[in-house]
Amino acid sequence: MKETGIVKSSLGSVRLINFPLIPDPRGNLVFAEYDRHLPFAPKRFFVTYDVPENSVRGEHAHKKLEQLIVCLKGSLTVTVEDGCAKEDYLLDSPDKGVYIPPLIWGVQSGHSKDCVMLVLASDVYDESGYIRNYADFLAHVGK
Amino acid sequence: MKETGIVKSSLGSVRLINFPLIPDPRGNLVFAEYDRHLPFAPKRFFVTYDVPENSVRGEHAHKKLEQLIVCLKGSLTVTVEDGCAKEDYLLDSPDKGVYIPPLIWGVQSGHSKDCVMLVLASDVYDESGYIRNYADFLAHVGK
Repeated sequence: MKETGIVKSSLGSVRLINFPLIPDPRGNLVFAEYDRHLPFAPKRFFVTYDVPENSVRGEHAHKKLEQLIVCLKGSLTVTVEDGCAKEDYLLDSPDKGVYIPPLIWGVQSGHSKDCVMLVLASDVYDESGYIRNYADFLAHVGK
Repeated sequence: MKETGIVKSSLGSVRLINFPLIPDPRGNLVFAEYDRHLPFAPKRFFVTYDVPENSVRGEHAHKKLEQLIVCLKGSLTVTVEDGCAKEDYLLDSPDKGVYIPPLIWGVQSGHSKDCVMLVLASDVYDESGYIRNYADFLAHVGK
């Protein structure tokens, strides 16, 4: 089993979380559990696939929602921003994920052709919790 | 958005659950929410990948755990059995999943080379909740 743990970002409470990877002749297995690797119990998941390679997705923040982004196939870059600093995370294997707390502007780009992205969210969909305008986001974070 | 809903199996309370699929020029998106499409709030997920094509995985039941199996890339067959009847589900797209309640013997096979399987589970890992012997399983379901 590979080393696992949480690597703290310099940007707010964004985290790169490493999940346990169990190699097996019958195939590799990665797992994550609430409280050990997942900072929240998910109430929603969504998956994106067949994303054109030059696409940019995300470009919003959430008022209260927490999310965990995992790339299960291929690769993509997750960019996070708190209004002051910006960081890029390359996700290119299923054994790691980026935890995104509320009030972080998030963008996904650089999807490989075969990219399959899984997002776990702490609550069900609520459009009123989205901040879709960057100027509004800056106002929310006091910038 | 494609039609969604729950297709009842003839085998106990196993269900094929269809998730909403939102096609978009920036890529396809599939989602599922607790209470609408997920019969439980997940506390664990695991992912298998690079599974050899002739592998057979699973071959156990759970005393209390509920699971949802989704194939996010490629394809595989999920076989479920309640001690009387057996059913096969071909999972070949991310917009559907098999819900497996407790006391169902489950087997995954026929993985395509690129298969990525996501399993959501209703609780964290507990080895004491597994039934790994088929005769024990039959005894548990009164056969």
